[in-house]
Amino acid sequence: MKLGTVRRDGAERVAVAVGPGDERAALLDPGLTMSGLIGDWAAARPAVERSAERSAAAGASETVQVSDLEWLPPVPRPGKVICVALNNSANADRIMSGPGHPAAFTKPASSLLGHGRPIRLKREYGRVHPEPELAVVIGAGGRDIARDAALGHVFGYTIINDLTSPTMRAQDTFHYRAIHPRADGSEGIEYVDTWVSYPGRYKGTDGFGPIGPWIATADSVPDPHALTVSCAHQGRLVTSDSTGNLLHKVPDVISFMSSYLTLEPGDIIAMGTALKPSAAGGPAIQNVNLTELGGPIEVAISGIGTLSNPVELL
Amino acid sequence: MKLGTVRRDGAERVAVAVGPGDERAALLDPGLTMSGLIGDWAAARPAVERSAERSAAAGASETVQVSDLEWLPPVPRPGKVICVALNNSANADRIMSGPGHPAAFTKPASSLLGHGRPIRLKREYGRVHPEPELAVVIGAGGRDIARDAALGHVFGYTIINDLTSPTMRAQDTFHYRAIHPRADGSEGIEYVDTWVSYPGRYKGTDGFGPIGPWIATADSVPDPHALTVSCAHQGRLVTSDSTGNLLHKVPDVISFMSSYLTLEPGDIIAMGTALKPSAAGGPAIQNVNLTELGGPIEVAISGIGTLSNPVELL
Repeated sequence: MKLGTVRRDGAERVAVAVGPGDERAALLDPGLTMSGLIGDWAAARPAVERSAERSAAAGASETVQVSDLEWLPPVPRPGKVICVALNNSANADRIMSGPGHPAAFTKPASSLLGHGRPIRLKREYGRVHPEPELAVVIGAGGRDIARDAALGHVFGYTIINDLTSPTMRAQDTFHYRAIHPRADGSEGIEYVDTWVSYPGRYKGTDGFGPIGPWIATADSVPDPHALTVSCAHQGRLVTSDSTGNLLHKVPDVISFMSSYLTLEPGDIIAMGTALKPSAAGGPAIQNVNLTELGGPIEVAISGIGTLSNPVELL
Repeated sequence: MKLGTVRRDGAERVAVAVGPGDERAALLDPGLTMSGLIGDWAAARPAVERSAERSAAAGASETVQVSDLEWLPPVPRPGKVICVALNNSANADRIMSGPGHPAAFTKPASSLLGHGRPIRLKREYGRVHPEPELAVVIGAGGRDIARDAALGHVFGYTIINDLTSPTMRAQDTFHYRAIHPRADGSEGIEYVDTWVSYPGRYKGTDGFGPIGPWIATADSVPDPHALTVSCAHQGRLVTSDSTGNLLHKVPDVISFMSSYLTLEPGDIIAMGTALKPSAAGGPAIQNVNLTELGGPIEVAISGIGTLSNPVELL
């Protein structure tokens, strides 16, 4: 099943894909929200399925054309969006030193943007490039989730475009002498030459998180590591990758992160950039400077859907 | 006025400090939430004041002893917590290169912890030290807020202890060859030697955000840059600083950050660590390894209150 959140006559509604090609959707009763459904999915699911089937059977009058919908992020206000960094096997030969476990940052909910909504960029953002990623939507929350139990905490999968400004990243990096306790264990401090970078702006700026349109529920994605991920800019293929190239897999990431951060229903985990360039040649995602070139920018993942956004230069 | 959020008989309630020394509190009607009050403060304030005055006049039977309360974060689930990095004039001589504007990261709401609640630390967190900070609570939201209008967007001020694990920071730092577009502007890439660090764990782990107990409303804090900030570990003074030492001031931070991230009612901005050591000598905050030494750890800001948390080693 595929679920999304849309705005219809000013109200938030949950949409369910019906019929071939996900071209039409049934809208669930007003008052139902994605967060509500995720929080109680086992109980809610049969009614959602019946409602979608009834609408589909009733035909065009009871369903809407997907292309007419105004999309919101599928979980409109997740508690957190955890983004795994440098998690593609294509990165391995570029890393001189780094952890053997998943490393992550968080993106604020205010940076998320629905499918089809314009990414509004200011000149002062500098270079802004796309990062196409598989995103996990957490169902049952938890802490210290065992690897073997991890997939049972997945509500479904969606698509995120983890927009990044390397200009702001360079600006918000400090080279400084960090204060450490004395290495000899005595009370007192010493200085250690350190680099530190802060992702508040370069990952968290408004519009830097296009996400959706659909969440494919977990049962409809038999293997989250066998999905093709592609990214196209102005119709030209930039990335052609597979989630098989993820270095840290979904169960490892859920298990590891949940031993530090409690996962809550509706939390999002972006699994890291799919960055293998298209076999046909052409630019890398880092060449696609949206501030300079504009949009649209599109990310597609097999079995989930296509996320496309225009760009508006302010 | 001072407001907080507590749990009482299983329900979330807003508490208002009454009487001398903030030792007693009136609890507002169930159903009222801090988020609701912040969203409509101008209209809600007179009724809140009347209710608190009635309770205070009725005496002990209508108020509760503050020390008996179970505190939640004053805004229990803020949309985002923006934390300004390296924002104390005491840092200036340690920074070899860095931006001239505020740099920030975000902490997830799941990392926040109420006053008095135990900070639960695992051995594998490594070193964990306190960072005492003034926190701004946003009232009216906005985007591209002018410097002159910024203080009008402040609902009030609270206290945050921005716990940090330098061990995890070191682990989650990569030295790698970043992909950049070719400097000559042609399509194609080149590699640039880069350091990047990801704060998901070292700033966002559960319990790394003790906050509260009170929000002092903006009108009760005539100058947010004239407050003393102190931090005490197991009763020993560690930090004795002033918000006058903040490098980037509250209006500058609100204005700058809001030109990238839309601020929403209830959002928190942690203004950066007060780290001047106590004049009496003693340890630096970096010497206070809570994983090794345990608690309690206490942060006090003049005119706002005292935030104290025990430590539980897991």
